[in-house]
Amino acid sequence: MRKFTDVTDIGSLRQAVDEAFEIKRDRFAHTDLGKNHTLLMIFFNSSLRTRLSTQKAAMNLGMNVIVLDVNQGAWKLETERGVIMDGDKAEHLLEAIPVMGSYCDIIGVRAFAGLKDRDEDYGERVISQFIRHSGRPVFSMEAATRHPLQSFADLITIEEFNTVERPKVVLTWAPHPKALPQAVPNSFAEWMNAADYDFVITHPHGYELAPEFVGNATVEYDQRRAFEGAHFIYAKNWSAYNAPDYGKVLNTDRSWMVDEEKMRLTDNAFFMHCLPVRRNMIVSDAVIESERSLVIPQAANREISAQVVLKRMLESL
Amino acid sequence: MRKFTDVTDIGSLRQAVDEAFEIKRDRFAHTDLGKNHTLLMIFFNSSLRTRLSTQKAAMNLGMNVIVLDVNQGAWKLETERGVIMDGDKAEHLLEAIPVMGSYCDIIGVRAFAGLKDRDEDYGERVISQFIRHSGRPVFSMEAATRHPLQSFADLITIEEFNTVERPKVVLTWAPHPKALPQAVPNSFAEWMNAADYDFVITHPHGYELAPEFVGNATVEYDQRRAFEGAHFIYAKNWSAYNAPDYGKVLNTDRSWMVDEEKMRLTDNAFFMHCLPVRRNMIVSDAVIESERSLVIPQAANREISAQVVLKRMLESL
Amino acid sequence: MRKFTDVTDIGSLRQAVDEAFEIKRDRFAHTDLGKNHTLLMIFFNSSLRTRLSTQKAAMNLGMNVIVLDVNQGAWKLETERGVIMDGDKAEHLLEAIPVMGSYCDIIGVRAFAGLKDRDEDYGERVISQFIRHSGRPVFSMEAATRHPLQSFADLITIEEFNTVERPKVVLTWAPHPKALPQAVPNSFAEWMNAADYDFVITHPHGYELAPEFVGNATVEYDQRRAFEGAHFIYAKNWSAYNAPDYGKVLNTDRSWMVDEEKMRLTDNAFFMHCLPVRRNMIVSDAVIESERSLVIPQAANREISAQVVLKRMLESL
Repeated sequence: MRKFTDVTDIGSLRQAVDEAFEIKRDRFAHTDLGKNHTLLMIFFNSSLRTRLSTQKAAMNLGMNVIVLDVNQGAWKLETERGVIMDGDKAEHLLEAIPVMGSYCDIIGVRAFAGLKDRDEDYGERVISQFIRHSGRPVFSMEAATRHPLQSFADLITIEEFNTVERPKVVLTWAPHPKALPQAVPNSFAEWMNAADYDFVITHPHGYELAPEFVGNATVEYDQRRAFEGAHFIYAKNWSAYNAPDYGKVLNTDRSWMVDEEKMRLTDNAFFMHCLPVRRNMIVSDAVIESERSLVIPQAANREISAQVVLKRMLESL
Repeated sequence: MRKFTDVTDIGSLRQAVDEAFEIKRDRFAHTDLGKNHTLLMIFFNSSLRTRLSTQKAAMNLGMNVIVLDVNQGAWKLETERGVIMDGDKAEHLLEAIPVMGSYCDIIGVRAFAGLKDRDEDYGERVISQFIRHSGRPVFSMEAATRHPLQSFADLITIEEFNTVERPKVVLTWAPHPKALPQAVPNSFAEWMNAADYDFVITHPHGYELAPEFVGNATVEYDQRRAFEGAHFIYAKNWSAYNAPDYGKVLNTDRSWMVDEEKMRLTDNAFFMHCLPVRRNMIVSDAVIESERSLVIPQAANREISAQVVLKRMLESL
Repeated sequence: MRKFTDVTDIGSLRQAVDEAFEIKRDRFAHTDLGKNHTLLMIFFNSSLRTRLSTQKAAMNLGMNVIVLDVNQGAWKLETERGVIMDGDKAEHLLEAIPVMGSYCDIIGVRAFAGLKDRDEDYGERVISQFIRHSGRPVFSMEAATRHPLQSFADLITIEEFNTVERPKVVLTWAPHPKALPQAVPNSFAEWMNAADYDFVITHPHGYELAPEFVGNATVEYDQRRAFEGAHFIYAKNWSAYNAPDYGKVLNTDRSWMVDEEKMRLTDNAFFMHCLPVRRNMIVSDAVIESERSLVIPQAANREISAQVVLKRMLESL
């Protein structure tokens, strides 16, 4: 695998999930594979789960790991070509990327959407430049429009806990005080569509996701109707995609919070969220602490999804 | 060992010190013990010695190490349950802790006292939650009320340099420009009492430590009298414990500084301090640079105390 | 090798370059050499290339690596002796250095010039104290007056690409919005003089480097004349060395930028820069992106120069 930025990079989902389960049974079965190979993790934004789980996955494979926080202890990077660099940015990505590539074998990049310019965000400029100029396999640790390691972990989790033939999976918008990217819901929709579940997206008017991510999903504006008969409820906030409101918070309607009363509308559904989660904004304490909450197993599977991707990249070197 | 937060967790001090000396003779005798095991070090506060010595100890045992500075490159964490999380804290400890636990085998936590609310500090809320919710062995890298890796290193150092049967060990308060927690003096008192030395605490009126830490120690308000015949002088600043002055600097009386003239009152005592130390506030240049100063061997023994704790935790997995 | 701060520490340049080429052919030939040995990298200033390439070099040799950013997650350090430490600096270098030395086998230090006091900078106080007090081999990751890992990588790069018997190498000043240290040009001059190339330095009046670094180089104030017949153009900005302008920007004359028209004056010279580089200040997009630009191979050789130095230090332990 030379890149991992969207669902198509992983090939057969069935095979990917089987490989994940195999790794989960013995995560140290391939400690020689990564020997003398270095993962470079580059963060343009904050991280907790991704930082820890990806390091852990790489070490499980015997890799060396270097973590670089671009905004701490390194230079600020210019991303535009043609600029006279007389400001506060000391280095251009066009130099920094091949240089970073020269010190490692595989690169992970986190670069969030700026939420100011939709074309720029959906152009995925930062991670695309890494793919083009680093000379190394590159995987997304959450880019502007997708978070595929999360979605892959979500898929693994659903496959672990699902007991019906074709589960009903509901992605529900929920309120949040700040404007958040669409990366997680986009990506989740992309993977759920690829998995061919009965997939429903519910959100207030104005929060429509980009059509290429909605795909064949059912969009239902009535949250309670959407929840009926669901097997998995996946809550997440996102900001508006549609112009001219791109990146804005249109609504902080607390009535969209997931609580016990709404969960009773489902078919005893599991509750999922990618974390970090705002308690009592997105979800009530009772639901997230219930026996049907999968947020911790989901996060634990981040190590597994990362390890599948790293293993495949190592095998392809 | 499933936790290491106070002196009772280490069991027999004699055995612990013997194990420390054994490790010191060959710190690479157990490099297979930590293989495929990961230490996660979580810092809510700054660190130099603890950061370096604990990493070194873990690597001596063949462990993988992940360092997380919660206030750099990660989210701010909510610690209260029931809160509507609409402020600047993006994640709750109740999620973050089990997630962190899922990516590692052993957890070290540093979380200082806030010095605002004594009950909160002495309740040790942060490290207690890690013990309760992480599912992993947890050790303190300095918590609100104790710094046991430091005290264990102090004990090892005294045992290395002591030449008398039952040494007189004096803990003396010394001035400092800022309010500091009581963790180091509390913990030192706890370990010295457990070691059954002739243990004396000296400080100005108002700086009494909590009775559960003072234990059977002699409290002497006259610093010069306390120093008479001492074999070890341990200097440290701390802020007031007593209500209503909890966490306050009552006094910056420079006459409490440890200098050569005072050291002459002792029985040629060794000088100790946990570092970092403010020179010419806590101790004069001459004393800290003298042949009887143990501050460097003491710091070097932090690697050893951490290695004993990690070794025992690995053995108990 | 017990220290690496200037060109004399490396001994024969011929042998050093040969060893570099040998490592480049197989950088994992000595993975046992570093086993159970720890490199401590201490940054007082920001870093990208040095941070990554030195970690990579150490891991190639099987070493453990600890990275310490002194200004992030650690205490501020006092460097003056005799001070009453009642300000914001919590620890003295005189304690911190031997403590750091006790947790590792080799130390790398980055400590830039302050550009305020020439005598202080050229006295190299920080790295000298590490050499004197750490008890460990110490190498410079860029000190106040030299950047020898960079210059060694530059030498390796010239030796890789050079096709003539005695190349003409030109170090040219170029404009920059901020005041930069002289460490890179000083060091480059030192190594080029030692390599006995036809070495020319060109800069505007007022930017003369310290005589001990200029050595036998030709100084030419006319940039275009300097470029004539050159085989390697090495661009770099620096601030004034001469009193009373020490550390100042005297000039931001854009006509000193390296562009295609000037490169045509050379004998089809290669373009070099240590990075990070300000595009369209120091060098035009066209020159840095041209086939004759060596900035990426130069940076890649930072891993190699660091590995030679670490290998020699490990061999001398």
